[in-house]
Amino acid sequence: MNIPQRIAALRASMKQRGIDAYIIPSSDPHQSEYVADRWKGREWVSGFDGSAGTVVITADFGGLWTDARYFLEAETLLKGSGILLQKLTVQGMPEENNWLVANLSAGSTVAIDGQNFSITQVEGIKKTFGERLHLVTDADLLDPIWAERPALPTTSVFEHDVKYTGRTRAEKLADVRAKMTEVGCNTHLVSSCDDIAWMLNMRGSDVESNPLGIAYAVVKTDAVVLFINKDKVPDAFRKRLAADGVSLAPYDAIADYLGALGADDKLLIDKDIANQYLFGRLSETAEYKFGSTPARHLKAIKNATELGHIRRSMSKDGAALVRAMMWLEATLPTRTVSEVELAAKIAECRAAMPLYFCESFNAIIGYQSNGASMHYHPKAATCADIKNEGILLMDSGGQYLDGTTDITRTVALSTPTAQQKLHYTLVLKGHIALAMQRFPAGTRGVQLDTLARMALWQHGLNYGHGTGHGVGFFLNVHEPPQGFQPALGERGKAVQEVGMFSSNEPGFYLNGEYGIRIENLVVCTLDEKTDFGQFLRFETVTLFPIDTTLIDRSLLGRAERKWFNDYHRQTYRGIAPLLKTPEEKAWLKAKCSSI
Amino acid sequence: MNIPQRIAALRASMKQRGIDAYIIPSSDPHQSEYVADRWKGREWVSGFDGSAGTVVITADFGGLWTDARYFLEAETLLKGSGILLQKLTVQGMPEENNWLVANLSAGSTVAIDGQNFSITQVEGIKKTFGERLHLVTDADLLDPIWAERPALPTTSVFEHDVKYTGRTRAEKLADVRAKMTEVGCNTHLVSSCDDIAWMLNMRGSDVESNPLGIAYAVVKTDAVVLFINKDKVPDAFRKRLAADGVSLAPYDAIADYLGALGADDKLLIDKDIANQYLFGRLSETAEYKFGSTPARHLKAIKNATELGHIRRSMSKDGAALVRAMMWLEATLPTRTVSEVELAAKIAECRAAMPLYFCESFNAIIGYQSNGASMHYHPKAATCADIKNEGILLMDSGGQYLDGTTDITRTVALSTPTAQQKLHYTLVLKGHIALAMQRFPAGTRGVQLDTLARMALWQHGLNYGHGTGHGVGFFLNVHEPPQGFQPALGERGKAVQEVGMFSSNEPGFYLNGEYGIRIENLVVCTLDEKTDFGQFLRFETVTLFPIDTTLIDRSLLGRAERKWFNDYHRQTYRGIAPLLKTPEEKAWLKAKCSSI
Repeated sequence: MNIPQRIAALRASMKQRGIDAYIIPSSDPHQSEYVADRWKGREWVSGFDGSAGTVVITADFGGLWTDARYFLEAETLLKGSGILLQKLTVQGMPEENNWLVANLSAGSTVAIDGQNFSITQVEGIKKTFGERLHLVTDADLLDPIWAERPALPTTSVFEHDVKYTGRTRAEKLADVRAKMTEVGCNTHLVSSCDDIAWMLNMRGSDVESNPLGIAYAVVKTDAVVLFINKDKVPDAFRKRLAADGVSLAPYDAIADYLGALGADDKLLIDKDIANQYLFGRLSETAEYKFGSTPARHLKAIKNATELGHIRRSMSKDGAALVRAMMWLEATLPTRTVSEVELAAKIAECRAAMPLYFCESFNAIIGYQSNGASMHYHPKAATCADIKNEGILLMDSGGQYLDGTTDITRTVALSTPTAQQKLHYTLVLKGHIALAMQRFPAGTRGVQLDTLARMALWQHGLNYGHGTGHGVGFFLNVHEPPQGFQPALGERGKAVQEVGMFSSNEPGFYLNGEYGIRIENLVVCTLDEKTDFGQFLRFETVTLFPIDTTLIDRSLLGRAERKWFNDYHRQTYRGIAPLLKTPEEKAWLKAKCSSI
Repeated sequence: MNIPQRIAALRASMKQRGIDAYIIPSSDPHQSEYVADRWKGREWVSGFDGSAGTVVITADFGGLWTDARYFLEAETLLKGSGILLQKLTVQGMPEENNWLVANLSAGSTVAIDGQNFSITQVEGIKKTFGERLHLVTDADLLDPIWAERPALPTTSVFEHDVKYTGRTRAEKLADVRAKMTEVGCNTHLVSSCDDIAWMLNMRGSDVESNPLGIAYAVVKTDAVVLFINKDKVPDAFRKRLAADGVSLAPYDAIADYLGALGADDKLLIDKDIANQYLFGRLSETAEYKFGSTPARHLKAIKNATELGHIRRSMSKDGAALVRAMMWLEATLPTRTVSEVELAAKIAECRAAMPLYFCESFNAIIGYQSNGASMHYHPKAATCADIKNEGILLMDSGGQYLDGTTDITRTVALSTPTAQQKLHYTLVLKGHIALAMQRFPAGTRGVQLDTLARMALWQHGLNYGHGTGHGVGFFLNVHEPPQGFQPALGERGKAVQEVGMFSSNEPGFYLNGEYGIRIENLVVCTLDEKTDFGQFLRFETVTLFPIDTTLIDRSLLGRAERKWFNDYHRQTYRGIAPLLKTPEEKAWLKAKCSSI
């Protein structure tokens, strides 16, 4: 079936069941951002493979709601699908629900597959619909028509050694249980795979770039049931899990298990993560309480062992990039290099480093105008050839057993124009403003986001994505809750706390011309305590030179230049010991020049 | 009765009714910030007369919860009352409710007078109490023991001419009714006195510094009922109101009126403003919908007529201050001037200006360490004598028929120290950063607040109040919804829109030493529309020189100095035409020097 045929089959199924509109989100039953192939239903129906986007199909309309990061890409991918791009004005807002209210006649029926929506999302849809539209939450319409639907991944999970994690499984479970007790619960459903991975010191490779296994877990006061396909758990690891009170049950058994909970089981359930289908399976007598899954906050605060690994892993990540960039510079005078080839070269250089596991996401190598498409991912058939001119944006990262990296650099391959230097320097000013700002404990992401934008705003410029996201420790490169964003989403509202690990990545995108982004990872650390409270600041841990040829030095103040030069000194000191040849060291020395 | 006797009487009444704790807020049945004497029950019980603070009395404890603005003042005022200061960590948060949960035994009964709490506040208390504490909402315990309780004000209301307001009563009512229709309502309770004043082009003098009348209004699709004591409305004004379909009813009749609403009356009620007592009076069959009172947002966007008056009224306000400051400078070499005397002199100079009505709030004249008490109000018996040395903070404003002003200046009366100049210049940097920032449409107060703090934060300094509040047009000097604040309160969440009128007032307070605040009023205006969206900026409208002797010029960048010098030029041009003598002009010229 091609895409129009799939949509036609879906419409036939809708008609048969009296459904006027069907909503297909990009998520899965675990509210994952990146999902296993089995749950790529939105891509299967529409052809759009971006990480965020929601499709709505009615009898005579098909629409994809996505945010500014994907506008250019979506226009291309949706061609011929019959689905129209609907531009979100606020990233992450379910604006399609308002569209349904405005465009369907009163009394119409809208349906979803409740497995792929959180309880909170369903509440939100119902609130928007009011009495005007009827919502059906148990309509899995794709499965019956999706003949070639992929099965669940069968790859093995494994233990993430305590020498990396810093805390044992037993210690982490004790922390989770203490939080459960605090809120008066003795049972807790953990349905987010990264929280399970963190809590059980377990990793896997079920989802591309996300080193985790697909599972549910229920934590009781004296035991844990891990719902996972048994064959995925090697015997030795199973025994070690059992020693900590963790027993296994089939993945699909979770619904019946929850359905059997009684009044003595005080269930803590996170309505932002748990899916509507499982929630609906609770019996009428079940006692539950909505609350944040404790692992989410515990995992966000990196411990001293993790922070030590994070700092050290940055050196090897920087050294890998030195080799990839030297290769690019040596190759470009002789021939072009495709974006995909460069992405592979960067991954190859990282893979040569100790404890490498995989990429932390599909690298974004955006040459010239491709860089202006914020989350562009080059594909072999269509990607651009990089020549020895213009602007190149490179956003890539690695998963190592001892840390996750995520770095963006933008470089000029020929002499930049004054306008390019202005745009680049304004982005750099934003990056530095956030990197060097001290701020009082209690400050939220939305307050700090402003620092990264104010220089661009002053010139009537802006960028259509958040300034930063939380990062996992050998886990998802996008990790809740904290970050920097201009909206009052989870990242905007979250308070920065000591030990949180986030990206600092302002950008600027000139449609059809070039994209600029400068991204380092930062750790929130203690600053001094004054009469005006405890102050915090960021320690920048990513190590790699920032292109100086794109900087208009006259736009930087003394404090900004000092930060930059200190950063280049620290970068050289951090990477040089891992370099093997005098040429590599000389290359790095030259790139780490002062301004 | 003295204060301990009043508390004893309250405790006796609590004991008789089986009440374990009683909460007394600073508000009134209209959720006013400044209340008529009749509703100063919190002050009557505790002696604390600040604008924000909540008292809780139990059998063996009395506490006042207030925010950092009032810490120093409250310590003094509460002496001997037996009531302990409880420091709020977040301004405006009802932290006393958490205290009650933590400190009362389970099953205890807490009571309030529902007239002085909004529906939202009661919901919040109930949520915090959960099943642990029982809440009684109809306990007016103060009235029976408050023998000398003041009556309702009897002063007259009057019409605010359309030549000032720019829009007629009929036009404003049409706007309100359009918003009611949008949300499907045909009846609307307006219980905030400033919204009634705006909507009916009515003003009064029932509350000190707030030029409004105490009333309720119910807007129907074809009529308005104004609940106000009839004697307050002059005949001619009553006829003009009647011509626009506004009839009068006694103030106390509102409860029965609401109680008589039936199923055909679709009532729009603002749960953040309407009080719990009136809400409880709705019949079981009444149909209602919670939603924002339309006047609140309509009134926040000043129209072109209002903006013209606002700009012009700033010149006379500045000229009045020129005279007051010249008087101070001439007097101090010969004798001291008490803080109260200076406040009176400033008011006297304003009163000499055309269309003056009253002060817009009790002036804060804080000499030396008094300036460090953020909302200090000098009192004749205890205030300081200003000498020709040190730092003086002056925050004052006027109500004119053609506008409301609010300005703070901090001046050095002798040569300042390097530390004073540093602190002053950091506050000025924050003021300028906000004043000159362009920002995209949709930006919220919490995002802009950061701009005013970042320079102070960088030095480990901060201030314990919001950066700005909305301002009325010949109405309340604190007007919702917009403003600048670091928390996610109403002001932090509100989006700045073209035509909004707000204060920009960062500060710094060194306990026991001095206070610094630089406050101008700003209007949100349209900036250019670029490929990256519509940008907005602020037009600073307040006109008065900013003391240059306190500035450390080396801390200011080129753009900051340009803003400052432009502002001084604009200030001279705006005020000089209203000055009468060459001496006045020369004084202003010297004060408006460039840096």
